[in-house]
Amino acid sequence: MLTTVYLIAITAEAMSGALAAGKRQMDMFGVVLIAFITALGGGTVRDMLLGNFPVNWTQHPSYIYLTITAGLMTMVVARFMHRLQQLFLILDAMGLVAFTIIGCNVALALNYDLPVVIMSGVITGIFGGILRDILCNQTPQVLQKELYASVSLLVAGLYLTLHDAGFDHDLTLLASFSCGLALRLIAIRWQLSLPVFSYSPERWQD
Amino acid sequence: MLTTVYLIAITAEAMSGALAAGKRQMDMFGVVLIAFITALGGGTVRDMLLGNFPVNWTQHPSYIYLTITAGLMTMVVARFMHRLQQLFLILDAMGLVAFTIIGCNVALALNYDLPVVIMSGVITGIFGGILRDILCNQTPQVLQKELYASVSLLVAGLYLTLHDAGFDHDLTLLASFSCGLALRLIAIRWQLSLPVFSYSPERWQD
Amino acid sequence: MLTTVYLIAITAEAMSGALAAGKRQMDMFGVVLIAFITALGGGTVRDMLLGNFPVNWTQHPSYIYLTITAGLMTMVVARFMHRLQQLFLILDAMGLVAFTIIGCNVALALNYDLPVVIMSGVITGIFGGILRDILCNQTPQVLQKELYASVSLLVAGLYLTLHDAGFDHDLTLLASFSCGLALRLIAIRWQLSLPVFSYSPERWQD
Repeated sequence: MLTTVYLIAITAEAMSGALAAGKRQMDMFGVVLIAFITALGGGTVRDMLLGNFPVNWTQHPSYIYLTITAGLMTMVVARFMHRLQQLFLILDAMGLVAFTIIGCNVALALNYDLPVVIMSGVITGIFGGILRDILCNQTPQVLQKELYASVSLLVAGLYLTLHDAGFDHDLTLLASFSCGLALRLIAIRWQLSLPVFSYSPERWQD
Repeated sequence: MLTTVYLIAITAEAMSGALAAGKRQMDMFGVVLIAFITALGGGTVRDMLLGNFPVNWTQHPSYIYLTITAGLMTMVVARFMHRLQQLFLILDAMGLVAFTIIGCNVALALNYDLPVVIMSGVITGIFGGILRDILCNQTPQVLQKELYASVSLLVAGLYLTLHDAGFDHDLTLLASFSCGLALRLIAIRWQLSLPVFSYSPERWQD
Repeated sequence: MLTTVYLIAITAEAMSGALAAGKRQMDMFGVVLIAFITALGGGTVRDMLLGNFPVNWTQHPSYIYLTITAGLMTMVVARFMHRLQQLFLILDAMGLVAFTIIGCNVALALNYDLPVVIMSGVITGIFGGILRDILCNQTPQVLQKELYASVSLLVAGLYLTLHDAGFDHDLTLLASFSCGLALRLIAIRWQLSLPVFSYSPERWQD
């Protein structure tokens, strides 16, 4: 199941990357590259950080083709995207949660300590979007908008708690996935967000 | 031959990095650092991604000295750069093509699959310029302007096609190099570019 | 002694990251992430670059907790930060120097060549701040303001010169640390900076 969700997630992330590239008037190559990096960048950073070579996607050419196709398709269907916005947000939320769980599993298999496992999950979940925003020269939105990175953190925490408590693997997976997805969709619906830290040096110096 | 072209290419890339740093009023150290990263960053990202340690330039201190020197020299000759613009564009084009072929060779030697070999070539070719633009806080120009990244992609494809078809190594090298260089210069001359994807969410929501 | 200074340094760097995130109105999670990356990003880039796995902080969960705590604390004490500005600049300077020396030691232990050892020191010293600025969408300040990166370079050079000359380890450490700290504080006090390279293509083309 996780593999199916992962493929859907890659596609959704690639499309979000392509749209961001389009907002910067990139050429077709730029669109495809940003799509690729948004979809597979989180896992790439994780693997490079954990010394987990070869990096995952280098062993799965099909992931490369899938993200390229998704990027190109987005250029064609962009004008209909606003009608699909609801669907798109759901796919993106599924991606966030699936990426996080996969990231935890990779670090678990490498026997890293618990806090590193959690960070591995979160990095896999959110770094594709962060790289997308860096390449498109904007402040990372996942660190500013409604609950997003924190959903990833919560999913990682829940997954590892259930995992350590010895629950059935499928149950653990299903519970973490559902809770994460629900929280993310609730956050979008009611615009829930973490407290924002707004600091302007001048304000305090008067 | 490839080594000679490589040294010229490093120098040209370092100079382009130094000029970009100058546009941001960086200090002498910043100029040298951006020069270094522009020249050697593509290969560094490639080696880190492919798990190819030690990273190439760490075994060749002369590359470090060369890029530092090129960065410092650029500060001196900057006022004459506009007269050398034609030459500079040719050197930069040679760099793009040489970097791409070298990147393909590295991944081939590590037995990666074909799509990864192509990406290795393209990453080596264009990521120095992308890192330069990220550090100078601008949207990567290689993803927006005339054919650039796509020249890298075409060179990688041609090189690997001829390579797999069993052509003589020198001939393969020469053909890929010439075609890539010619295409890049033609693209500059006639401002050829890929279709641009321009997406503004508001436009479709009216 | 270096360990104590290192922990102080991590804390100071994390706080500088949190403040930068606050200037971009990031949420609580963004603040903590930027704090973490500012504090530990330099060492992470160094380890990934040198192939030094596992990356240092993955073996020291306490570093993770420390930077998270420092990030959260900063949100609380931000309104008093301007009164602590002097103290803060001193802690930051200690961090710069300590990070540099630690970075040199890591590359020395891996038997890299001298220029790579120096770069390892400088990267450890300044890349946390560079990543902070990239994530906060601004041109890296450490490459523009008063002597900062150059202090790191000088410390690395002095440390390795004394080290190679066979001086006592503690003496070498103390001398490099003091000189670096003094130079940085002098640079702040009298706004010393390297020559700035200001390049605007238009100016020369008239």
